[in-house]
Parts: sequence; structure tokens; C-alpha cells
Amino acid sequence: MYDTMNPDNSTQTIRILTTGGTIEKSYCESDGTLMNRASTIREGIIQSLRLPYTELELESVLNKDSLEMDDADRDKIAQAIAACGDAQPIVVLHGTDTMSVTAEYCHARLGQPGVAVVFTGAMKPMGFIDSDARQNVTEALLAAKLLPPGFYIAFHNRVFAVPGVRKNLDTGTFEAC
Amino acid sequence: MYDTMNPDNSTQTIRILTTGGTIEKSYCESDGTLMNRASTIREGIIQSLRLPYTELELESVLNKDSLEMDDADRDKIAQAIAACGDAQPIVVLHGTDTMSVTAEYCHARLGQPGVAVVFTGAMKPMGFIDSDARQNVTEALLAAKLLPPGFYIAFHNRVFAVPGVRKNLDTGTFEAC
Amino acid sequence: MYDTMNPDNSTQTIRILTTGGTIEKSYCESDGTLMNRASTIREGIIQSLRLPYTELELESVLNKDSLEMDDADRDKIAQAIAACGDAQPIVVLHGTDTMSVTAEYCHARLGQPGVAVVFTGAMKPMGFIDSDARQNVTEALLAAKLLPPGFYIAFHNRVFAVPGVRKNLDTGTFEAC
Amino acid sequence: MYDTMNPDNSTQTIRILTTGGTIEKSYCESDGTLMNRASTIREGIIQSLRLPYTELELESVLNKDSLEMDDADRDKIAQAIAACGDAQPIVVLHGTDTMSVTAEYCHARLGQPGVAVVFTGAMKPMGFIDSDARQNVTEALLAAKLLPPGFYIAFHNRVFAVPGVRKNLDTGTFEAC
Repeated sequence: MYDTMNPDNSTQTIRILTTGGTIEKSYCESDGTLMNRASTIREGIIQSLRLPYTELELESVLNKDSLEMDDADRDKIAQAIAACGDAQPIVVLHGTDTMSVTAEYCHARLGQPGVAVVFTGAMKPMGFIDSDARQNVTEALLAAKLLPPGFYIAFHNRVFAVPGVRKNLDTGTFEAC
Repeated sequence: MYDTMNPDNSTQTIRILTTGGTIEKSYCESDGTLMNRASTIREGIIQSLRLPYTELELESVLNKDSLEMDDADRDKIAQAIAACGDAQPIVVLHGTDTMSVTAEYCHARLGQPGVAVVFTGAMKPMGFIDSDARQNVTEALLAAKLLPPGFYIAFHNRVFAVPGVRKNLDTGTFEAC
Repeated sequence: MYDTMNPDNSTQTIRILTTGGTIEKSYCESDGTLMNRASTIREGIIQSLRLPYTELELESVLNKDSLEMDDADRDKIAQAIAACGDAQPIVVLHGTDTMSVTAEYCHARLGQPGVAVVFTGAMKPMGFIDSDARQNVTEALLAAKLLPPGFYIAFHNRVFAVPGVRKNLDTGTFEAC
Repeated sequence: MYDTMNPDNSTQTIRILTTGGTIEKSYCESDGTLMNRASTIREGIIQSLRLPYTELELESVLNKDSLEMDDADRDKIAQAIAACGDAQPIVVLHGTDTMSVTAEYCHARLGQPGVAVVFTGAMKPMGFIDSDARQNVTEALLAAKLLPPGFYIAFHNRVFAVPGVRKNLDTGTFEAC
């Protein structure tokens, strides 16, 4: 276990980098579109979680559907991860379609990180009643505290090391590969 | 890390022992009481989580407010844990008021377990819109997969080793001690 | 139809008198009680309804379980209704157990009112995911606009004239009598 | 008041005709689209309303965004209304963009109906946490019981007679005109 448990009751910081993706798509009532606009994670999920010992620092890196991301975008994400330093674990919100591509890109570019970098997202935008966003974010925040340094994807009650994971389009979840 | 990540995509089993507590109190419309009746975790939380690689086995051990538990009850819980064997991790749903007492009792009685045994519960019953039950159960299920053998309390995005944790009545959460 | 429809797009005022009852019982995390404390209708329901043409004036008359109300309480409610005048319709939030008793008391004491006075409440407190509070309040607010002057109970997609209605303890709803 | 109140406790039937529109758009996780597929009102809203004295008969007439409707579609809706007969009131779920157009079309084609025909819909699909669908459907079902024969739009705690109502694109609601 990486985390040194129970030493005291001070607050631990987790950095959240948002890049868009299904998890953060929001609905516009005037034109009926469901798109990545601004980051909605704070009011959509974080405000209703109980995090007495966790301080979250949010940074919006991109607001893109991950199918539209290119290497320039992935480079921007890798740079944002690198700029975080090694002081706190990192959660990256990302579209599921190319989440493993970006995670592998960051792994190839940055090598072994000094902290846990946990990617997550959702199959259904966080605004829906039956979205999996809240579950995945809850899991990613805990995984970020418990896991040793490395790149991971946390999704649907499972943590995958990167590389070694891909989205399964048929089942709508991630799988080891 | 205890969990051997990404080996394959087979299902992992987690055993859930329910004992009652605030998390499982349900409201009776005919008499207006909020009490522990039967276990409600399956329809209240589990059915709406996405658990493609997780099989849950539920066992209802007790249905008690944890303030009303005595050593005979704790013994029953310890026996239920022991009877699970070491094949799968265990999550125990329990009232928060004496959760650390029961967890320490089990630790004293059973010694070091062969699997992770993660206690959790909630400050507000799972039927309430703003309950913390879903968050805590989501965390406990992931912690059960990630943690090495031992007794733990998972609560509000933090995992505590047992012994070494108690409820803080003023803040409404657990703290290291 | 009492309401003169479509004349313009000015705002119509509805006065809401709260008296307690199951609908407004709230949960205290430190002692685990579910009780009438302060009125919670604004943040619990009203803030999430869309009411572009409706102005609500809230007045907290009592915070009591309706089984504990006596004639002095009912007198206070009747006085509060009378003090509203005839300028706008009135919705009264009230416990279901003696709702028809109070409504009949007000009818006997005040006679035919100059506006619609619509009592409603809930079988399950508004904080629960599957509460009927939101449905009943939504119906009562519309009934208050549509109904001619008189005392009514609006509940579970039905409007009852008062007197002529009582709670059915077996079915958990109101019925004509 | 059209409804004869309190005569007995028999069930009243309301017929619901669904035509699509924003209210019934559902999200597809595999392609990320938000579209009218099949009618979702039963599991999305009706199953969680308490309707002890109301029987609902659902008929799916169309599944279209109302911006894509033409007069052939409106004719189909008018025929479905006419085919209902005068035995029970009718609620029509419809997209907001041309709801008043369709309602006026039906009024022009069918003349004064023998029952209340109440159109409603939503600015945000029913699957979203903060959708207005549940509110509007709750209101429409009650309005269908309370209103005298005629065509209406029920929306956001207001009932409009048809003709005499249009959508206001700036405010995201209906207004008298």
C-alpha cells in the first residue's frame, strides 16, 4: 500500500484535470445539443460528495469529445500532468473512446510518474439520473489515494494499470488487454 | 498493491455482510418510523452501480442500530466474517456509532484476516437524496479489491486501518486516533 | 373554470402556509431523529420547480406532526388563512393524519373562503428519493390556480372538496367519504 | 369546474398520446446521441408517480422531434385524438418547439373536443436530474382531470387555452399571446 494510513487527520490534496468527454457533456435547452462546454464536475458531482479530509484542485485543460482529440491535445494533457509535480495524486476526467490512447500517450511521453495518475470518465453524462459518472469519480478519487505511482484507469469498480487496458465498445466498459 | 491488476477479465467476488445501522434504516409510511427492518442495500444502491467484473454475495447477519449491539452481536459478526473464508474480500455494512468498536472486536477475536475486511456505513440512511451511503459503499467495494488483507473502515474518501480509527461525533465522520 | 386563462403574462402569487407534517420532517445526522424542525419546502422542492409566472410567499405557521395538533393549533392555522385575505390562492402544507380534520375545522370556522385553499402533504418526507412530496406540491400549486374558491385536499393526482374526504390508513392515500 | 368531485373512489382513466419531443429523447451510450427512439414515459416518470385513482392508457403515435413534424404528422396526431372518443381526458406529450402549432392544428381540424386535451412536454429530456418533465407531466395529468373540454397547454405551473399560447424562445417557457 502506497498510502500511509491513519498518520493524522490533515487534509490530502488531489488534483483533478478535466479534458471534456461524455462525463462532462451538458445539455443546452435553447438548441437541444449535448456537448462539452465548460467543466461541470464541481457542481455536478463534487459538491455532493463528502470529502472532509480531501482538498480538490480543479484545472480545466480541454473541453473536447475524446474522439476529436489529436496528439496536440494529448500533449497538452501530458504537459498539464507534468506541471502538477509530485506533491499530490492526480485524477484526469476524459472521454472513454480514446481514454486508453491518451493514458498510454502520457505514459510513453512522461514515463513512470511520481504519483498515481488515475483516468476516469463515464458512459453517460453526469447530468443524467442513471449516469455512471458519480460512481467512477468516487472510485477514481479513492484510487488516487490508495494506488502507488503509475498511470491507471478506474472505471466501474475496477482499476486497470496502463498500458494494458482498452474500451470494449460492445459491453460499454473497459477491459484488460 | 494486493490486487493483481489486469490479469484477465474474469469476475471477482466480494462478499457483503449487512448488520443494520443508519445506512439501512428504512421509512415505514404507515407509522412514520425510520428503523432497521430488512437489508435494503441491493435495491437501494447495488442495482444502480455498474459492476461488470464484480459479483456480490449478500448475507444479512443482523438488522440493528449499532448503539444497541452487544458483544453477542459482535460475536455473531465475527463468526460471519470467519465463515466467509479467504477466497474473496468482505465489505461489512454497519452503524457508524460503534463501527470501530465492532471492527476492533473482530480484529481482536480473529487476528489478521486472509482478505481485506472493509467496514462502512452512512451518516444518513440510503433512502435520502443527500445520503452518503452510495459514496461510502462505492468506496468500500473498491477498497475491498485494492487493499491487502486486514481490517479497515472506508468512509468519506478515506481508508483507515483498524485499530486506529474512531467516529468523531462533532464532525460526523471518522478520524485517525 | 375560476382562473381567467391567458389574459397576460404577469406573475400570479400563491401563498404557502407550512404547518409541519411528514412532508417537512427532516433528518438530524447527529441524533438520528426524523422530525419537524424548520420549514424545508423552499430548498427541498420549490427551488427545483420551474415557476416563471408564479410568485410564492411562504409563511411558517407551525412545525408539528399533525397527530400532535389540537384545536389551538387548528385555530392558529385558520387565523393564518384568514389573514391572507382574498388576493391570492393558498396552499397549506400539513400532516396527512389529521389533514382533513384541520381542513374541516377551517371550513367550519371560516365558512366559504374568497380563494381556493388547497391542503396537501406527503406520505413520505420530501428528503427521500421516492417521496410523494414533490408530486403533491406540484399538484397543489396548479390546483390553487385552477380551482374556484373553497377548501380542498390535493393528493396523488386527485382533488377532493372539503368536507367529504378522509385519509385511508390502509391504502396510504385520501378517499372520498 | 368540469370534474365532479368526490362522488366515489372509482378509478378515472386518462389517455396519454406520445409523439416524441425533447421530453422523451433518450441517450444512447454506444453512439452518444440524444434522440427520440421509443416512448420512455412509463419507466421514466409514470412508474414513480402515485396514482391510486388514475388509470393511464398509453399510445405511442410518433417519435419525432417536433421541429421535424409536418402536417401529415399533425394529421396523425389529430386522428389519434379523435379516435380516443369522449370517454376520458387526454394528455399529449409533444416537443415544445411546435407544440402550439400542433395544438392549434388539432383545434382547427377537430373543433371543440368533448374532453380536455392537454398538451405538455419539457425543455430538458426526462432522463436529466434537473428536467422539468416530471413537473409538467404531473401538472398535465391533474389539469386533464380538472379542466372543462378544450385544447390546452400545461407547462411550468400554468395552463393556457389553445389558441392563445406560444413558446418564448428567450425565456424557455410558454406565454400567452
